[in-house]
Amino acid sequence: MTGELSVIPLQGIPELEEGDDLGALLVEASSRAGGFEPGDVLVVAQKAVSKVEGRVVHLGDVEPSTRARSLAAGADPRRLEMILEEARELVRSRPPLVIAETRHGFVCASAGVDASNAKGPDTLVLLPVDPDASAARLRDRIAKLSAAVGVIVSDSFGRAWRLGTTDVALGVAGITAILDLDGQLDSAGYELHATQIAVADEIAGAAQLVMGKTDGIPAAIVRGLQLAGEGSGRDLLMPRERDLFR
Amino acid sequence: MTGELSVIPLQGIPELEEGDDLGALLVEASSRAGGFEPGDVLVVAQKAVSKVEGRVVHLGDVEPSTRARSLAAGADPRRLEMILEEARELVRSRPPLVIAETRHGFVCASAGVDASNAKGPDTLVLLPVDPDASAARLRDRIAKLSAAVGVIVSDSFGRAWRLGTTDVALGVAGITAILDLDGQLDSAGYELHATQIAVADEIAGAAQLVMGKTDGIPAAIVRGLQLAGEGSGRDLLMPRERDLFR
Repeated sequence: MTGELSVIPLQGIPELEEGDDLGALLVEASSRAGGFEPGDVLVVAQKAVSKVEGRVVHLGDVEPSTRARSLAAGADPRRLEMILEEARELVRSRPPLVIAETRHGFVCASAGVDASNAKGPDTLVLLPVDPDASAARLRDRIAKLSAAVGVIVSDSFGRAWRLGTTDVALGVAGITAILDLDGQLDSAGYELHATQIAVADEIAGAAQLVMGKTDGIPAAIVRGLQLAGEGSGRDLLMPRERDLFR
Repeated sequence: MTGELSVIPLQGIPELEEGDDLGALLVEASSRAGGFEPGDVLVVAQKAVSKVEGRVVHLGDVEPSTRARSLAAGADPRRLEMILEEARELVRSRPPLVIAETRHGFVCASAGVDASNAKGPDTLVLLPVDPDASAARLRDRIAKLSAAVGVIVSDSFGRAWRLGTTDVALGVAGITAILDLDGQLDSAGYELHATQIAVADEIAGAAQLVMGKTDGIPAAIVRGLQLAGEGSGRDLLMPRERDLFR
């Protein structure tokens, strides 16, 4: 892990619709940046993946429950309804802010339910049903068209005691998600105890630095990592029995 | 923020001692990697900064209190004593694991008190007294010797609901820590509401990917960002009144 890294934005990807061949669009975008190389890690924003997978909801189709109305606190109760449908458990609620555990096990604001930027104020975008499967499908498609890359499906999450969001890995394919240094010796020969580095989250954050929020850049390549492996987004979830904050 | 980034490890920095001119050593290391360029962001591991600032404690000099003994649960009570001295408040304790708020306001494991890798099993390294001041001093020194760079003093923190650590920014000088997109329009012309991106933490995480834990690489350059500004590590702290998890 000690070489130099490049983080390369993938530009010119059009507004996405359900059924679009995102893998092919990413290969096309990568070719404008010199093409994928084996060992590259492709980071794709969750919203891009969700759109091609049809995880878009029109508020007009949502009937809010009584519970959604009571949680909405002046916000749109239809949005709260979708949050409740996506959530396995509400972790904290300070209306209209809701921190929830999604059905996948992610703890995040609004159970990952987000306003669509490009689809207009009356639509919501939900997280992919299975982000690891989404990442694996993209990896397979890109391997077929171009090169063997690792894939991360990323999203912006807040943190309990720090301001601002950082991008993290929801879905992972073809790379290590957690680098476990347990038992490796450090540079002075002392054993490192249980050092686990969430490299997939750090890669997602690095990619965010070139993706921005306002620029319509839904993907980036991180080049120079040596992290080929069989990690998954689930590797990054804190097991409930070790959770000190619920 | 849409160009390409490079993340460049700074190698060959010797084991550090109190009083070492870390800025000069970093400039020397950077020259082996082509030198600093204006606008570079230098990320330096907290442990390197703490060592030159003399924030190293020898366990033989520590007298544990009764409270430290009761929290130690079989671990070394002198280490718990130092954690208690560094902490403003204990947030969670599952002996011997302690999550504490440091006197700076960081919520992290062991109040940032860490075993020293290179100084041997009987020493602890504490966080810098004022990481923003540490970053500013390094920035000034490097500006004098080489170029105007941003500086981040980084450390590895765990997260409440995700496994593994990611590196975050404790001290910041010369760059924006939180990128506030509140009110900026997204690519489709809709307003983004209160999107705050913790870019300094994402930069620290990107640098960690080339620094590793075992390789004796305490610093890296992140090149290609356009984030010159007046941010600080304090910008990244969740205000107590917005904290939902204590």
